[in-house]
Amino acid sequence: MQRTEPEHLVALRRELHRHPEPAWCEFYTTARIVEELERIGVDDYYVGHEAVAGDERMAVPDEDELAEWYDRAREAGADPDLLERMEGGYTGAVAVLRKGEGPTVGLRVDIDGLRRGEADDEDHDPAAEGFRSENDGMMHACGHDAHATFGIGVLETVADSDFEGTLKVFFQPAEERIGGGKAMAESGHLDDVNYLLAVHVGLDHPTGEIVAGIDGFLAVRHLEATIQGEPAHAGGRPNEGRNAVQALATAVQNLYAIPRHEDGATRVNAGRVAGGTAANIIPEEASLVAEVRGRTTDLKDYMAERARQVIDSAAEMHGCDVEIDVDGDAPSAESDGALVEVGYDVAGDVDGVDERIERDELGGSEDATYLMQRVQDEDGLAAYVGVGTDHPGGHHTATFDVDEDSIPVGVEWLSRTIQRVAAERP
Amino acid sequence: MQRTEPEHLVALRRELHRHPEPAWCEFYTTARIVEELERIGVDDYYVGHEAVAGDERMAVPDEDELAEWYDRAREAGADPDLLERMEGGYTGAVAVLRKGEGPTVGLRVDIDGLRRGEADDEDHDPAAEGFRSENDGMMHACGHDAHATFGIGVLETVADSDFEGTLKVFFQPAEERIGGGKAMAESGHLDDVNYLLAVHVGLDHPTGEIVAGIDGFLAVRHLEATIQGEPAHAGGRPNEGRNAVQALATAVQNLYAIPRHEDGATRVNAGRVAGGTAANIIPEEASLVAEVRGRTTDLKDYMAERARQVIDSAAEMHGCDVEIDVDGDAPSAESDGALVEVGYDVAGDVDGVDERIERDELGGSEDATYLMQRVQDEDGLAAYVGVGTDHPGGHHTATFDVDEDSIPVGVEWLSRTIQRVAAERP
Amino acid sequence: MQRTEPEHLVALRRELHRHPEPAWCEFYTTARIVEELERIGVDDYYVGHEAVAGDERMAVPDEDELAEWYDRAREAGADPDLLERMEGGYTGAVAVLRKGEGPTVGLRVDIDGLRRGEADDEDHDPAAEGFRSENDGMMHACGHDAHATFGIGVLETVADSDFEGTLKVFFQPAEERIGGGKAMAESGHLDDVNYLLAVHVGLDHPTGEIVAGIDGFLAVRHLEATIQGEPAHAGGRPNEGRNAVQALATAVQNLYAIPRHEDGATRVNAGRVAGGTAANIIPEEASLVAEVRGRTTDLKDYMAERARQVIDSAAEMHGCDVEIDVDGDAPSAESDGALVEVGYDVAGDVDGVDERIERDELGGSEDATYLMQRVQDEDGLAAYVGVGTDHPGGHHTATFDVDEDSIPVGVEWLSRTIQRVAAERP
Amino acid sequence: MQRTEPEHLVALRRELHRHPEPAWCEFYTTARIVEELERIGVDDYYVGHEAVAGDERMAVPDEDELAEWYDRAREAGADPDLLERMEGGYTGAVAVLRKGEGPTVGLRVDIDGLRRGEADDEDHDPAAEGFRSENDGMMHACGHDAHATFGIGVLETVADSDFEGTLKVFFQPAEERIGGGKAMAESGHLDDVNYLLAVHVGLDHPTGEIVAGIDGFLAVRHLEATIQGEPAHAGGRPNEGRNAVQALATAVQNLYAIPRHEDGATRVNAGRVAGGTAANIIPEEASLVAEVRGRTTDLKDYMAERARQVIDSAAEMHGCDVEIDVDGDAPSAESDGALVEVGYDVAGDVDGVDERIERDELGGSEDATYLMQRVQDEDGLAAYVGVGTDHPGGHHTATFDVDEDSIPVGVEWLSRTIQRVAAERP
Repeated sequence: MQRTEPEHLVALRRELHRHPEPAWCEFYTTARIVEELERIGVDDYYVGHEAVAGDERMAVPDEDELAEWYDRAREAGADPDLLERMEGGYTGAVAVLRKGEGPTVGLRVDIDGLRRGEADDEDHDPAAEGFRSENDGMMHACGHDAHATFGIGVLETVADSDFEGTLKVFFQPAEERIGGGKAMAESGHLDDVNYLLAVHVGLDHPTGEIVAGIDGFLAVRHLEATIQGEPAHAGGRPNEGRNAVQALATAVQNLYAIPRHEDGATRVNAGRVAGGTAANIIPEEASLVAEVRGRTTDLKDYMAERARQVIDSAAEMHGCDVEIDVDGDAPSAESDGALVEVGYDVAGDVDGVDERIERDELGGSEDATYLMQRVQDEDGLAAYVGVGTDHPGGHHTATFDVDEDSIPVGVEWLSRTIQRVAAERP
Repeated sequence: MQRTEPEHLVALRRELHRHPEPAWCEFYTTARIVEELERIGVDDYYVGHEAVAGDERMAVPDEDELAEWYDRAREAGADPDLLERMEGGYTGAVAVLRKGEGPTVGLRVDIDGLRRGEADDEDHDPAAEGFRSENDGMMHACGHDAHATFGIGVLETVADSDFEGTLKVFFQPAEERIGGGKAMAESGHLDDVNYLLAVHVGLDHPTGEIVAGIDGFLAVRHLEATIQGEPAHAGGRPNEGRNAVQALATAVQNLYAIPRHEDGATRVNAGRVAGGTAANIIPEEASLVAEVRGRTTDLKDYMAERARQVIDSAAEMHGCDVEIDVDGDAPSAESDGALVEVGYDVAGDVDGVDERIERDELGGSEDATYLMQRVQDEDGLAAYVGVGTDHPGGHHTATFDVDEDSIPVGVEWLSRTIQRVAAERP
Repeated sequence: MQRTEPEHLVALRRELHRHPEPAWCEFYTTARIVEELERIGVDDYYVGHEAVAGDERMAVPDEDELAEWYDRAREAGADPDLLERMEGGYTGAVAVLRKGEGPTVGLRVDIDGLRRGEADDEDHDPAAEGFRSENDGMMHACGHDAHATFGIGVLETVADSDFEGTLKVFFQPAEERIGGGKAMAESGHLDDVNYLLAVHVGLDHPTGEIVAGIDGFLAVRHLEATIQGEPAHAGGRPNEGRNAVQALATAVQNLYAIPRHEDGATRVNAGRVAGGTAANIIPEEASLVAEVRGRTTDLKDYMAERARQVIDSAAEMHGCDVEIDVDGDAPSAESDGALVEVGYDVAGDVDGVDERIERDELGGSEDATYLMQRVQDEDGLAAYVGVGTDHPGGHHTATFDVDEDSIPVGVEWLSRTIQRVAAERP
Repeated sequence: MQRTEPEHLVALRRELHRHPEPAWCEFYTTARIVEELERIGVDDYYVGHEAVAGDERMAVPDEDELAEWYDRAREAGADPDLLERMEGGYTGAVAVLRKGEGPTVGLRVDIDGLRRGEADDEDHDPAAEGFRSENDGMMHACGHDAHATFGIGVLETVADSDFEGTLKVFFQPAEERIGGGKAMAESGHLDDVNYLLAVHVGLDHPTGEIVAGIDGFLAVRHLEATIQGEPAHAGGRPNEGRNAVQALATAVQNLYAIPRHEDGATRVNAGRVAGGTAANIIPEEASLVAEVRGRTTDLKDYMAERARQVIDSAAEMHGCDVEIDVDGDAPSAESDGALVEVGYDVAGDVDGVDERIERDELGGSEDATYLMQRVQDEDGLAAYVGVGTDHPGGHHTATFDVDEDSIPVGVEWLSRTIQRVAAERP
């Protein structure tokens, strides 16, 4: 087997790192990925409407923001024809490589950045080496630049290997907002996938470690509620108001008080609230951004259903209307043991892997679970795997960075695991 | 004009004082009043179903309690035939006296006692003189014994006068629970009343004072809510409960937070709450006894409507059912100036009246307002009037008492006012 | 008596109208007023630190905003020397006119604009006539441009009259935020004022009407609370958070539930709330802008004290710190009858006054009450008076405008009332 | 080894069943146990003050109730001298059997009944066989009658065996209120115990099954809060009240909203609330019976600390005082593997045991954990074990019953396990 030149992958990763983009605005990133797909010469690729189920996208920004990032991608040199195929926030891509008879193996990588600024001092490699984010207030602070690079590296490596079967790589948008997993899962491209790997770097594992199976995803849903009341002068006509902030306060108090569940851990948070305009006006409008989680999808659904009842009743109590939007969602998932075993075995024989861990817990949420679930529902196998990398700052912090030495290690381990899976059909 | 012998009235008042009875249990009291009506020989009298609109009674006790007071009245010597006419809690009486052509003038007196114990020391006249309450935990602590006595005294006095017209005296049950006013107002007996006086003793006015017109009634409604959820083991299955105490707490918080009203004073109180059974059981049931008030009937209705919405939504929020009963109600009312003027004039010429006050404020609630409103709606005039009496303890306290010297003063003033009203038709 | 030329006053009013400025940013307005004072040649005038008690200013904007309005005033042509005296948000002026022996009479006018856009169509005179606001998002939508003009007109008119005594005109900043009254009341300039008039145009009275005494001010206080907790990951470490939004919700629920008061009307409003950053972070910070009111100053203080207790305890309950700032305040006040009578009498003899009203209710709040109270506390008399003006849109709306015909009417009525007050010393 | 005659044990169990007694009122039960101890001739026994640390008792009833049950025990024939040693609610006993050199092994059984009525139809054996509860509203509905019987049977069996060491049997009061474990744990009698077994019948395991180790206890604390405010007339002086029901509602809302914890399951319940007296009185007093739980003792303590803060702040917010009493408490605990193994092995060889289960989860709370913890803290081993019994109704229901065939099985298994433990010192 022959690796892609590590230099090329590092250069690609750095270029993506310079252009972090938010959910459904990964215009530059997608265009750049497609350039690579054409360079590699994959058999098919899908982009925009063809890659995701448009109606299932969650957390799509408003038109102004989409337009702003679209323009920025164009100015950064993205191919205008490709951009046109993504207009309206249809980002992401699916690449297909066909090599003889065999099962279909999928690899899912996510590609979006985070809304946070990046460190700018010499200790921070991207700053020192000149590939710090060029988009103020956005940063690849969770390694999705490396994930996309894994996708390209694996395609090229597997193309040059004796793999027999079909390889699909899913470049998924909007993971940070848990807004893209469902749209990709329901794109149709997952329907024939027999085995799926989803990969993440870091997670407090150093360079040289790999984790063959990650579990413990909390299922999660993000809700956005807008409560509409009636304003009134607080001194002169308090009774004529329909107080959206009273409804909000009642909702918040009761959201946190949703009963704990016998079946396991649940979570709830009213993470961002706002309402009203001035001291002397009965508040006409209020908004709530909340999340619920559960150790299982059922527990998350339990919390979501109760949350909806709380918010609806709180609005009704105060004579307000309310609209509740689902703004992100991901089920829970488990990594299938048979697939985990293959990855674990393969890792024993990959250069640069010093330590292999069979199982670990994530303790957070991820919408790769939508894709995993899709495959598992059709009797396929799925696993979420980790590639260790030394990262100076924690995930989502300003000093997060990927140790680039871990990139070829990850590419090789993933590629060889994919080959072995196709050959052994576990 | 000739007065009833004061001794007789005092004896009657003392007998009533010895037998205080709660709302809709005034069996002994009503029977005793009817004996007096027969002694006097009024033209007609109505009792029980004939005296009140049965369906409009509020705050009726349960059957066991009705039965207990019924038995007690029988044991105390009430006429069994009369008692039979009151079975099921249909107490109260209406007396009619017809004397030639003239308008119909009404006098409303209330007859129920209060659920509280009576003082038992020598400073307290009823104890010293041997006419203290014989019913433990019940007391005539608001002077309704004197009110009923006024009714009898006035009937006898007016019968012997040159009054021309019809006099109706309304012996109303259940005032303390604001549960009887509506039932009497809608009995039909008010429909032809042209002028109505309602009378109260004391109210911090001493013997020798009269008040010709009292206003400032707060309209009031009593609510009783029963919230029904589902129990569950708090450790094992918290999610299976439907928590009635959470619904209750949400309701209480939001009841007090009903917006103030531009049109004037409002009140709300969650006066008695209870719920749940044990620390380790998710509470299945909760109850709430609340009241709302308003300076006007509209303000009370505003509060009542909002309260209902709050309670309903709080129950719904927690998956509970709720039943809300109106357990008492009284509108606001104003005393008509033309009627007040007559009483004020008459008072200038009544022996024993040292001080006459034209107008005063009650600052509380009373369901005489239902009868007043009924008369006023038919273009009649109504006034709420006060007869001063030295009362050692405050109203509703264990040492409240009526100065019996004020009884003949009240009877004469009321009787002469009634005559003058009939003659002058203000 | 001789009036200022109406043309000059109209031109002044239009110039002020073109430059509306917010609380403590009335740099241009104050400078323009001072120019007029110099033109008239008053005996003394005070500006900036000399005109207000600096420490008592409330609702002062932050430095950036002060600087922005300062620059804007300079660019609009305000005298740089005058501006320097106002640096840091010390706006407003006090003018003194001395004419022989006699009492000191004060006139208070307010000078700030409102944060709202102005209509821009031909029906709106300021747009049609070319004196619409030049400051986007700010507007003289409450007639303070006319009030300042009254101040100048009255000074000039009284200067030319046979008034004997001292006239002080108080050009007060920051009324719309009830942030300036206290600072002016405690400046020392009120200490020798025997009689004070405060004037407002419009208030739904048409041109030709005057109101000799306005009452019914609700005392008011604005509060700004900042709640500080600890953030935590809502999925991973919910227990480590100190949830500022839970504290906020608890506070809001209980603020509205502060008990009503027997002594009269109270109000409370949580008019603007915000908190938290993202769905998955336990909210670290929350803010609340609230107001309380009362029919009397005592009632307002009762509400303010209870509000503070609610907010403090809510923060403590959730392990948060809280800082509560008073961001505006005004007591209640009553217009003194003797002073009202003079104004009412004078109005009977002023050209252009068709209708004089002795008393009216405001039903809102105003911080002129601080100045009135100051005078009344020293046994002086004070009255709040109204000058009718046809105003097409309501106060605080985009189409509010002053009928300029009402300006000379107001100036004459106020001037002659001031003269009569000095002469008669009511 | 020789068993106690089963007939005797069954008769004892039935006698105890007829006399169920609540927490700290187990006067008859304790006296009856002591009679058995004297019959057996144990080496020592302790009762009352000698058996429990008096100050550590929780959930002790008031004096009237203690006196009532004391009298009832005397009337039922309990030995007056023994009763005297228990006066004031010092019930329970500790028995000591010494047989040569060897470790000290403890067996803990609980002896209290439940406050609930017992079924009275022919399907219910105690009714059919004439040993139904003679104390109305109390029932041995959780098998503690069998537990006490186990204690006696084991003492007698071990006494007749070749056991070498010391056997202590702890007859613990007040388990149902988790009020007795701590008092017994801190009596001093546990200090030298090397091995402790605590036993429970049933738990949905049928006759013939035994469970060698039970875990999954939720640590628990019961709280009782009394909130004291000030009453006021709700119509006349609402502002003068200090509303205990508002404080209660605020507390309840925020108790359920205590944040979930990353370390595992927590629980909270406001299981019983009450407050206020009448619709028209601002509530002066309110009470709350609540519990918190946690998978670990630390989690329980976290909940308890937060609950205290919530209740304190809610009271303070409404100007109320509050007193919070701990009314029951139990830590979590784990059964030690080495001890579990012995019991499991022994069970393989006991007549009547058809099925042995190594480990099971309780999923509830128990204050045997206090005794277990005490032993484990001193490097001893402890296990909670189960003896299956066919029980027609569920635990705590009116039709619960113990299959008496399971009694000798339990006695033999426990006795032989104790012998083996002493011999093997695991």
